[in-house]
Amino acid sequence: MKNDMNGANAPRFSLKPADLRRVSLTDGFWAAWQKTNREVTIPYVLDQCDKHDRTRSLRLEWKPGADWEPHQFYDSDIAKALEAVAFSLQTHPDPALEARLAEYVSLFARAQQSDGYLNSYYTQIGLDKRWSNLRDMHELYCAGHLFEAAVAHFDATGSRDLLDVAVRYADHIDARFGPTDEPSPNDGTKAPGYPGHEEIELALIKLARATGEPRYERLAAFFVNERGSQPHYFTAEAERRSEPPKSSRWVSDDFPAPYAYFQAHLPVREQTAAEGHSVRACYLYAGMADVARETGDAALLDACRRLFENIVDRRMYVTGGVGSHSHGERFTVDYDLPNEAAYAETCAAISLVFFASRMANIELDSRYADVAERAMYNGVLAGLSLSGDRFFYANPLSFHPTSPVLHHVRSDAERQPWYGCACCPPNIARLVASLGSYVYGVADDTIAVHLYAASTLEFDIGGSTGSLTQKTAYPWDGEVEFTVELSAPETFTLALRIPAWADGWTIDGADVRDVEKGYAYITRRWQSGDRVRLSLPMAPRRAYAHPSVRQDGWKVAIEYGPVVYCLEGVDNGADLAQFALPADAELRSEFRADLLGGCTVITGTGLRRAPEAPADDSRALYRPSSRRTPTPFTAIPYALWNNRGSSEMRVWLAEV
Amino acid sequence: MKNDMNGANAPRFSLKPADLRRVSLTDGFWAAWQKTNREVTIPYVLDQCDKHDRTRSLRLEWKPGADWEPHQFYDSDIAKALEAVAFSLQTHPDPALEARLAEYVSLFARAQQSDGYLNSYYTQIGLDKRWSNLRDMHELYCAGHLFEAAVAHFDATGSRDLLDVAVRYADHIDARFGPTDEPSPNDGTKAPGYPGHEEIELALIKLARATGEPRYERLAAFFVNERGSQPHYFTAEAERRSEPPKSSRWVSDDFPAPYAYFQAHLPVREQTAAEGHSVRACYLYAGMADVARETGDAALLDACRRLFENIVDRRMYVTGGVGSHSHGERFTVDYDLPNEAAYAETCAAISLVFFASRMANIELDSRYADVAERAMYNGVLAGLSLSGDRFFYANPLSFHPTSPVLHHVRSDAERQPWYGCACCPPNIARLVASLGSYVYGVADDTIAVHLYAASTLEFDIGGSTGSLTQKTAYPWDGEVEFTVELSAPETFTLALRIPAWADGWTIDGADVRDVEKGYAYITRRWQSGDRVRLSLPMAPRRAYAHPSVRQDGWKVAIEYGPVVYCLEGVDNGADLAQFALPADAELRSEFRADLLGGCTVITGTGLRRAPEAPADDSRALYRPSSRRTPTPFTAIPYALWNNRGSSEMRVWLAEV
Repeated sequence: MKNDMNGANAPRFSLKPADLRRVSLTDGFWAAWQKTNREVTIPYVLDQCDKHDRTRSLRLEWKPGADWEPHQFYDSDIAKALEAVAFSLQTHPDPALEARLAEYVSLFARAQQSDGYLNSYYTQIGLDKRWSNLRDMHELYCAGHLFEAAVAHFDATGSRDLLDVAVRYADHIDARFGPTDEPSPNDGTKAPGYPGHEEIELALIKLARATGEPRYERLAAFFVNERGSQPHYFTAEAERRSEPPKSSRWVSDDFPAPYAYFQAHLPVREQTAAEGHSVRACYLYAGMADVARETGDAALLDACRRLFENIVDRRMYVTGGVGSHSHGERFTVDYDLPNEAAYAETCAAISLVFFASRMANIELDSRYADVAERAMYNGVLAGLSLSGDRFFYANPLSFHPTSPVLHHVRSDAERQPWYGCACCPPNIARLVASLGSYVYGVADDTIAVHLYAASTLEFDIGGSTGSLTQKTAYPWDGEVEFTVELSAPETFTLALRIPAWADGWTIDGADVRDVEKGYAYITRRWQSGDRVRLSLPMAPRRAYAHPSVRQDGWKVAIEYGPVVYCLEGVDNGADLAQFALPADAELRSEFRADLLGGCTVITGTGLRRAPEAPADDSRALYRPSSRRTPTPFTAIPYALWNNRGSSEMRVWLAEV
Repeated sequence: MKNDMNGANAPRFSLKPADLRRVSLTDGFWAAWQKTNREVTIPYVLDQCDKHDRTRSLRLEWKPGADWEPHQFYDSDIAKALEAVAFSLQTHPDPALEARLAEYVSLFARAQQSDGYLNSYYTQIGLDKRWSNLRDMHELYCAGHLFEAAVAHFDATGSRDLLDVAVRYADHIDARFGPTDEPSPNDGTKAPGYPGHEEIELALIKLARATGEPRYERLAAFFVNERGSQPHYFTAEAERRSEPPKSSRWVSDDFPAPYAYFQAHLPVREQTAAEGHSVRACYLYAGMADVARETGDAALLDACRRLFENIVDRRMYVTGGVGSHSHGERFTVDYDLPNEAAYAETCAAISLVFFASRMANIELDSRYADVAERAMYNGVLAGLSLSGDRFFYANPLSFHPTSPVLHHVRSDAERQPWYGCACCPPNIARLVASLGSYVYGVADDTIAVHLYAASTLEFDIGGSTGSLTQKTAYPWDGEVEFTVELSAPETFTLALRIPAWADGWTIDGADVRDVEKGYAYITRRWQSGDRVRLSLPMAPRRAYAHPSVRQDGWKVAIEYGPVVYCLEGVDNGADLAQFALPADAELRSEFRADLLGGCTVITGTGLRRAPEAPADDSRALYRPSSRRTPTPFTAIPYALWNNRGSSEMRVWLAEV
C-alpha cells in the first residue's frame, strides 16, 4: 500500500469494501434475493456446470473424437460458481455446499500442471498452443476468475487448498509476462502480453491483498499499463502465429480504431471514452481503479474518472445497463441508446457495479454508488428470474414478442435455463452472494453506508468492537434507522450516501457535520444504543433522457427510489407503444405484497391512442386520424418483468 | 391472350400500360426529373458501367490473375442502363445516345455463345459451371434484364439487333428449363429449375408480347408455377454440387422457412405473406401478375391479391418502401417497420411500383395505383439526388449522423456515386425514363388515368385517332385539366383515379357515370376540345400508423397529396427527436420555387422539448424535468432530403 498521492487528483479516501464475513443482510429486499440465490441459483449453476461439460472438461476427460468439446471459457464458469459458493459460505455456513465446493477445488488442483499452468481447454487441446493468442483466447481471463474464487474460498474456509493452486498459477503467469527487461525463470525474458478479455487485473489485486505478495500487484499494474502500447502485442502475436494481424471481426471498421473492441487501441491513460466490449471494458476499469488505489497512481485514477464519466454521462441506460450493441456486445457512440435493440448484457451491468463500487470507496462521491445501485436494482437483477433459475443475457428496455431484432444469443423472449456462453448466471450468483460487501465501505475512522439494506455490520474501530444495524424496508420505503452497538464509546465518522434523487432527505438523531459529494458526514463520539434515522423521500419520479438521446425523445421513464419501472403487457394489454403518460398525470405508489414476491407498483391514468382506419378500409396501415382514450396503468419494477410469461414491455413511455 | 376467366376472381379489366412512345411528359414535376435523367443520370450510369468493370466484363476482357474480377450481376447493370437509354429514346430521340446504345448492343451480340448462352461472368470464369446454381447465381436474372432491354431497344429503334440476341438466349433457356416430361433439344429432358433471383418471369412476358412467341409465356408460367414445389430444385442442385443443401446464410433460422429468402418456401399459390428478399419478392409478384393476366389464371391472380394486401396492409413504409431489414434486404414480420434501421432499398420500392402498376391495370382499383404513386414520389425518388448522379441504396425514414446502425452497404449518410452492387442506379434511371407508360392504362374502349402528370397521350379508339392532354402542376397543385382531341367523335370511357386521400374531390365538365373502386368513370361520346377538370383537394394531412406498428406509436407523419414529408436538420436544427407536433397545430403549405428545384413545403409551429439537468450536474444523462418551447418548423418532401448536405432527418414525428 503506497497511497502517498497528494493534490487535487489524489484519491479522497480509500475505504475498503466491508469484509463480507462481517455483514449480514438480515431481511427485506436483498436478504430475500440472497436466500433464493443460496437455495436455488447457486446449486442450480453448479448442476448446470456439471450437466454442460464444464466439470468434465475440468476433469480433463475430453478425448479427440468425443461428442463434446472443451471450450476456452469453461473454467471461468466453474470458478465464478465456486466464488459464489464461497461468498455464500462466508455469511451462511452450509456443510453440504462446503463439501461440494471441496470437490471442485480438488478438480482444479488435479488439473494444474507441474509448472503451475491451469487451463483445462489447452491442457486437453494441446499445451503447445498455450499463450499463443492472448487477444482472442481467454486464458488470463479464466486465471483471473480462478484467483478470485481462491481468495473467496480462503476467506470462507481458511483453507489454502485453492489459494495455493492460484498462487502457483499466478507465479507461472508472472514468470512469463511482464517487462521485457525482466528475466524470466522459464525461458529468457518476459513477454509484454496482456489479456484480450480483461479480468485478471482486479483478481491479481485481490490475490496480492490475500497473500501479501507484491509481485501480483506489480503484474496487475503491468497488464494495465502495457495495454495498447506500441509495438502492439496483439499484432506481434498474430504475426508469430502467421495469421494476418487483423484476422478478427472485432478488429474492423465497425470499431472506432483497431483493437478498440479489446480496449487496446490506446494506452489506458490516453483513453477518454468507453469503447468496445462492455464487460471487458468495465472489468479493465475496475482493475485500473484497484491499481490506482493500491499504487497511488493519480494519472491512472484520472483515466478512471474520465471513463466513468463517459459511461455515465453518455453511454448508460437508465437501468444501469451498458453496451448497447449486440454486434460485439459493445459500447457504440455517445448518446446512442436503442431500447428494443439494447444488448445491455447482465454481465456488463455487473461489471459496472464492480467499477462504480471501487470508485465509490476511493472517492466517496455519491455519483459512484448511485450508479452501482442503479445497475444492481435494474440492469443486473433483470438478468435473474424470481425463481432463481432462469437468466437473461441481454436486457432490452423495450420488448415485443414479434420483434425480429437479432441478438447473437436470442435471449430476450424469456429468461433461459442456461447459455452456451454462460458467463451471466454464475456472475449474478456471485454478485448477489457478496452484496453485503457493497453496502458498507470502511476505513480506520470512517464507516460509509453506500447502500441501504436491512443489515448488520460488525466492525472494529479504535480499540472497540461494535456493530451498525440498518432497519429499513428500502427500496420500497425510504426510512432507514441505524443503531450503533459498541464495546466502549468511540469517536468515528458515519458517512451516509444521499442519492441524487433524494430531494428533501432528513437525518434525525445526530448532527450532520457536512454534506459533501453526496455523503452526509456524522462525526461524533458514539456509544451503544445511539440511533440515527435517515429519511429518503420515496415517491414516483419522472426521468427524462439527455436531449441527444434520440431514442428517448418525448419519452419518460418512471422511477421510485433506485428502482426503474416498466409497463408490461400482462398488466397493460398489447400495443404498449400506443400508451402515453400525460405530463400532468398523477403517479401513485402502492406496495403489493401479493405481486412478484412483494413490490411497490406505480399506478395512474394514461392515454391510449387508437389510430382510426377509414370506414372503407378497416385494415389500413396508414390512417387519417387518431383517438385518445384515458386508460389506467400499472407499472412494475423493470427487474421483475417477464416473470409472468412473455408479453410486451416498455421502460420509456411516450409523454404527451 | 387467353383471358377467358369468369366469376368473382376474374380480372376486372385488363388494360395495358400505355405505349411509352405515345406519352409525352410535357412539363412539371416528372418532366423535370426526366430531363435530369436524360441529361445526367443515364449518361452517368453508362460511364460508371464503363469505369467499374461492367463494360470490360461484357467485352470478355478478364483473364485469370487480372486486377479486377467479373461479377455474376454485372451484365444486368448494363442491360438496365440500356433499357433506360431505349426508354428515353422512345420519347426523346438523341442520335448520340442511340449510337452509344448500338455499341453496347454489339458487345452483347459478340459475347453471345454459339448455343445462345450469354453471361459474361460464366463465359470468363468457366462455362462448365453455368446453370449449376440457379439459387445463388444470377444467370436467369441477368437474362431477364437483357430481354427487357431488348424489347425496349426494339420499340425505340425498330432494330432487331438486340431482340434477336435475346431470342436466341431465351431459346437456349427454354430448351434447358421446363417440365421434366418435355424433351430438350440439348441433352435429354428439361430441368425443372427456376431463378433464385426472380425477374426473368416478367421479362419473358414482355419478350412474348414483342415477338408473339408463346413459348416464352409458357416458360414464364413454368418458372412461376414450379417455384417452391417438391422435390425442391434448390436442394437438388446443391446436392449435385456436393454442397450441403443449406450452404447459404439465407437458408437459416433468420427466415420463417427454408428458402423463404428466395420466395421458394412454398408454391406461389400457397404463399400468403411477402417473405424474404423484397426486390426478388416484388419482381416475382409482378411476373405472377403478368402470367395471371396473360393466361387467365384466377388462382394465381388471387395469390397476387393476397400478397399485395399483405405488403400494403402490414409491411410497407409510409414512403412505399419495403423490405425493412438490412440482413437479407428483406421483409420481416407484420407491422415491423423500424425507421432508423429501415433498409427499404430503392430497388424494392421500384419493384413494388412494377407489381402495383400491373395490378392496377388488371383490377382498376385505386388501391394499386395509390401504392405505386406513394412509392414513386417517396421511396423511389429518395434514391436519386436532385443532381441526378448520386444514389441511395437504403432509404431509412429517420437518420442521425452518429447512428451506428449497420447496413451491408453504408449508404445512408449521403447519396453515393456508385455501388459495388449497383442495381439501384440504372433501375431508377429506367423507371424515370419510362414513367409515361405508368400514367395511363389503355383498353379498346377505355383510357384509365392512374397518375396525374402534365402530359399528352396519343391513342386510337374505334376508328379515330386522338390525344388526351393533362394540364396540371401536380403534385403541388390538385387541379388537373384534361383536353381531348379526336380525328372524329368517338364513344369511350375515361376512368380517373381518385386517390384515397382526396376527400372532397370534384369533376367538372362531364358527368361521372360511376365511381367504383376508386376510379371515376366518364363514358360519353367525346369530341375534340372536350374539357374535363378534376379537382383534388390539396392540403397538408396527418397520417397515423396502424396501432400494431410499435415504431410509430404516438407519432405522426405529414403528407400532402401523394408526397410524404420529413423534417431535416438543415431547416430545423439538431436533436429532431425532441421535436413534436401538437395534435391541434395548424399545418400550412407553401410552394417555394427557390427550394430544392421548386417544391411545396409544410410549415407551422411545433414544440421542442428540453430535458432539464439538475443545477449541480449539467451533463446529466437522466434528468428530473423537461421544458417545452414553441418552435417553428419547415417540412420538406422526404424524397428531397439530403440534397443540402447530411443532417438529421425524420419522417415520423412525435405528436402530443
